[in-house]
Amino acid sequence: MVKRYNSKKIEQLIYNIYKGYGFTEEESQEVAHMLIYTDLIGIESHGVQRMIMYDDFIRNGKIRVHNRPEVVKETDVSAVVDAHFGLGQLNGIYSMRLAIEKAKQHGIGIVTTRNSGHYGIAGYYANMAAEEGLIGLSSCNSRSAMLPTHATKALVGTNPIAFAMPANPNTFIFDAATTTVPQGKIEVYRKLGKDMPALWVAKDGETPVNSHNDTKDLDALRDLDSNVGLAPLGGVTEDTGSHKGFGLGVIVEVFTAILSMGNTSNEITPDDLSVGPCQSFVAIDPSIFGDKDAIIAKFSAYLQAIRDLPSVSGKPVIVAGDKEAAAYQDRSANGIEIDDKTLAEVTGIAKRLGIDYAQYVD
Amino acid sequence: MVKRYNSKKIEQLIYNIYKGYGFTEEESQEVAHMLIYTDLIGIESHGVQRMIMYDDFIRNGKIRVHNRPEVVKETDVSAVVDAHFGLGQLNGIYSMRLAIEKAKQHGIGIVTTRNSGHYGIAGYYANMAAEEGLIGLSSCNSRSAMLPTHATKALVGTNPIAFAMPANPNTFIFDAATTTVPQGKIEVYRKLGKDMPALWVAKDGETPVNSHNDTKDLDALRDLDSNVGLAPLGGVTEDTGSHKGFGLGVIVEVFTAILSMGNTSNEITPDDLSVGPCQSFVAIDPSIFGDKDAIIAKFSAYLQAIRDLPSVSGKPVIVAGDKEAAAYQDRSANGIEIDDKTLAEVTGIAKRLGIDYAQYVD
Repeated sequence: MVKRYNSKKIEQLIYNIYKGYGFTEEESQEVAHMLIYTDLIGIESHGVQRMIMYDDFIRNGKIRVHNRPEVVKETDVSAVVDAHFGLGQLNGIYSMRLAIEKAKQHGIGIVTTRNSGHYGIAGYYANMAAEEGLIGLSSCNSRSAMLPTHATKALVGTNPIAFAMPANPNTFIFDAATTTVPQGKIEVYRKLGKDMPALWVAKDGETPVNSHNDTKDLDALRDLDSNVGLAPLGGVTEDTGSHKGFGLGVIVEVFTAILSMGNTSNEITPDDLSVGPCQSFVAIDPSIFGDKDAIIAKFSAYLQAIRDLPSVSGKPVIVAGDKEAAAYQDRSANGIEIDDKTLAEVTGIAKRLGIDYAQYVD
Repeated sequence: MVKRYNSKKIEQLIYNIYKGYGFTEEESQEVAHMLIYTDLIGIESHGVQRMIMYDDFIRNGKIRVHNRPEVVKETDVSAVVDAHFGLGQLNGIYSMRLAIEKAKQHGIGIVTTRNSGHYGIAGYYANMAAEEGLIGLSSCNSRSAMLPTHATKALVGTNPIAFAMPANPNTFIFDAATTTVPQGKIEVYRKLGKDMPALWVAKDGETPVNSHNDTKDLDALRDLDSNVGLAPLGGVTEDTGSHKGFGLGVIVEVFTAILSMGNTSNEITPDDLSVGPCQSFVAIDPSIFGDKDAIIAKFSAYLQAIRDLPSVSGKPVIVAGDKEAAAYQDRSANGIEIDDKTLAEVTGIAKRLGIDYAQYVD
């Protein structure tokens, strides 16, 4: 069952847990803010729900609590960060702050980060730049999950692209895997016992796997050597644009793993603690191109023209960021949604760390 | 009928035609090189075949032969160019050279260009950077053609994203409309009398238009106020990722029209000579991130691992740029492919301009 919980109290609980792991007060605040933000904008799959996975990683040494990101190469407009397998969220926040600083001083900053960890939603980091009045982009790679067009084996990650830019009334936030859907979406459909559209998962290159009962094939999605994989955005044939999603996935590898000389998707294996995903962070100051207010006003007017289009009955045209803004307003007022299983996981972690959690989840 | 013609001779013919229009020797060389390159890599729809359209535009004043691009705002890493409705190709070459110069000096260059014209394939400009050992990106907007998810009327352009990066044995060149297919592909299927896949064109938001006999609906694609439009990459429903192609299309509007304060797709009408598309040009020097040779070697090895994947029988895994490299080799040796109609159009232009064309098309 899903219940609503006060976001401020849960944020405080997360803060205590991360302090319990050994992170500093400031770091624990940053992680708590990041995870709660994710739930506040309605992406429940990637917020509090992920804490049990991070807890596993902290306990098995995949996330190294005491390692900190280090700049290994730098120019006025760029940096390469080695994250030394520290917490993905802290690497992300550190790297995007560096990109923002460079953008404020020199107009543009591009930071690419290797040996990182799972950093949650890419959109959070892109939005950090937007909150400073800048354009932000962030991407990450992952272990192989996407089938290159015609291939019978996956080799590219789910490789999301996030882009954020200030606009009125809502910040434009785009955050999308370059596969048609991310892995998590498949899991949600399986849990719900729902069949999937044909363009999500394929076997032997082109055969759709779309019944939630295809247990063996769907389990094989997690097996790096299997003949099952996620379809790129655009499906598995050139006719539907498969090569486009595939190409975009490769471009994400460039900005994350290739430029940082980190691990490409095919080098990331879940059990190897000496490899990790790579991420990229870009900030651009619109004022290097013109009057920032005028640029944002022009963008806002364009987005409004899109919202105002006639549409299919009952289905309004939604601009990226609008759903998230509505969810943020709702959840800030009425609480974030946490299911019983997730709550039990989080309170279990708290208990183990000796944290009195009752006051935060009443 | 399609015949093969010597690319060097046709390039000379194009050069003479552009000189005949009043462009300088250097400019005419640049345009001829750009158009021939397009045919050499096998994109016949956008090379010599487009000369008749540019000829119309030059004659009706949409392309202003004597106008030159002008930098209206500049920093070390960025510029805004007002193209004053000069020839799109020359604006593109000028703007990408500026981005390359900035990247060579400061690591990164971003140029956004307004009041431009049709500039051919975006990949040409991205590849200009790759030829200098840099990463290149280019995008352009166009009049409205894409249906935002759920909308019954188009409002975003076909808005391609091109990305090029040096690699061995072939430069990686990605060049893709953010619609599932560009307008030209629909025209090719109509000419051939072939029906189209369901995800290409939609009517009233979600109804596929896929018979080549749907003349009225397919003609309506060109009507800005019609209820027919091109599907974004990912189709017309969220299930298949429609919102992703739509979002990417909007991001292209930002880098082209919004940052340059030019015309967004909805402001571009074909008959209005005082509006024009916008373009963006990005160059990034990989050596700001590390050893350039090592980065290119790592990228090349990753692409080779993709090529080496097992695949659907008879369908190899093709990396972006491989098809183009093979076509370039073939057409350089055996000639570019020109159909009779296009040849007649080009020789017609030459005749009108008093150019002795016979020696170039024998």
